[in-house]
Amino acid sequence: MSEETQSPDTVTAALIVIGEEILSGRTIDTNTPYIAAHLGKAGIALREIRVVADIEAEIADAVNALRRRYSYVLTTGGIGPTHDDVTTDAIGLAFNVPVGINDEAVEAMRLQYRPEDLTPTRLRMARIPEAALIHNAVSRAPGYMIENVIVMAGIPAVMQVMLDEVLPRLAKGRPLRARAVRVNAPESEVATPLAALQAAYADVQMGSYPFVEQRRYGTYLVLRSVDDERLGEALEALWGIISEHGFTASQVDES
Amino acid sequence: MSEETQSPDTVTAALIVIGEEILSGRTIDTNTPYIAAHLGKAGIALREIRVVADIEAEIADAVNALRRRYSYVLTTGGIGPTHDDVTTDAIGLAFNVPVGINDEAVEAMRLQYRPEDLTPTRLRMARIPEAALIHNAVSRAPGYMIENVIVMAGIPAVMQVMLDEVLPRLAKGRPLRARAVRVNAPESEVATPLAALQAAYADVQMGSYPFVEQRRYGTYLVLRSVDDERLGEALEALWGIISEHGFTASQVDES
Repeated sequence: MSEETQSPDTVTAALIVIGEEILSGRTIDTNTPYIAAHLGKAGIALREIRVVADIEAEIADAVNALRRRYSYVLTTGGIGPTHDDVTTDAIGLAFNVPVGINDEAVEAMRLQYRPEDLTPTRLRMARIPEAALIHNAVSRAPGYMIENVIVMAGIPAVMQVMLDEVLPRLAKGRPLRARAVRVNAPESEVATPLAALQAAYADVQMGSYPFVEQRRYGTYLVLRSVDDERLGEALEALWGIISEHGFTASQVDES
Repeated sequence: MSEETQSPDTVTAALIVIGEEILSGRTIDTNTPYIAAHLGKAGIALREIRVVADIEAEIADAVNALRRRYSYVLTTGGIGPTHDDVTTDAIGLAFNVPVGINDEAVEAMRLQYRPEDLTPTRLRMARIPEAALIHNAVSRAPGYMIENVIVMAGIPAVMQVMLDEVLPRLAKGRPLRARAVRVNAPESEVATPLAALQAAYADVQMGSYPFVEQRRYGTYLVLRSVDDERLGEALEALWGIISEHGFTASQVDES
């Protein structure tokens, strides 16, 4: 990451989604928008997502490529008890550290399971390298954070409590605020004035997202900045452009 | 890709999703499951997905990393007329080829636009390197295929007709068939017999996907193979295991 983009204000993250079920199209990945939105609110900018198969070497390669580029790397999936859960072995490979039964993880699991139910299969979920555990009150089998890599479950209900648990431990940047306007005009009519606006407000990120509704093209314009004042000025200038060109438009609620 | 996984039967693909709107969590990416399912039916296995921001160098890096590893690389997004549409410049950078106005693309756009509406802004969509065009009857601005890289629009309605148009040109493998069974037992109870089944049917890929419903844990087991006969045998063996362990279960329709 260049110094230009990594200001002290900027904390970045990448997400690795582990799972054949997303690659096969069977499952729609709802974790990603959830994580993106929650990181964004905390001032951590999600910059890249990779979806990889349940293959140890591929997960390890992705972890190693991304943990050096971004402030944090989060992973979802592949920490359950079955043969296709290989994320923890991939983490061991990526960091070149041993993976054994973690006693603290076993203690956490005792809150959920009777001693006779802590079978060798279930104890696979306590195989964790030396790392800070991320407890979860839903399934009890913990996630963990090793250096800047955060390993979470794939089940949405479990992932969500793990993210809540780990977020307070992370460095935060200034949250990127967004303002969105829906313009009833195709991108090609909006493009030229928008480019001029972007040139005038280089510090406000401007995105243009076309849509089709009832066979008519429209454009969502999204302005993003860590600086509320600049965002307000750019938004006012955008409304000026909309009025000048006679577009119809409406503001869209952004969280 | 090792020779072991890249048999003549196997045609692979990676997908690059270009767009800040996915990374910010604003937009749920519905293109990915659509593309995954359609490639799968055509016998092309989607092996990796990357979501990257609208940054030329990052898109180019992803294209170059993936086009050497997989039979095909597909991209969605970033080929519209606005300043944040930088996919084509990224392709030019990745392949080190010039990008200019493509006359055939202009011809295609004349089917949609009157001459006076073919503004310089709209003509940005005809900036395409030397490549085989992928026509689309929805918006007319074409996608394209350069070597093994397929560049498509991000708007779902446009992407879908581009995918329909390009699929017949691609090499096909044997389609991976899937059979899924919903088991009303947590993964940790299914894991040991499933691992034994996987060992007995090494050529059938077996995935295990936990879910929570009304506070109870269950598991979807998905078997995948290009060989219908082996798939049928493995499925029969799985039902034997389910019966032996007294699990309740039901077959799930797979396309």
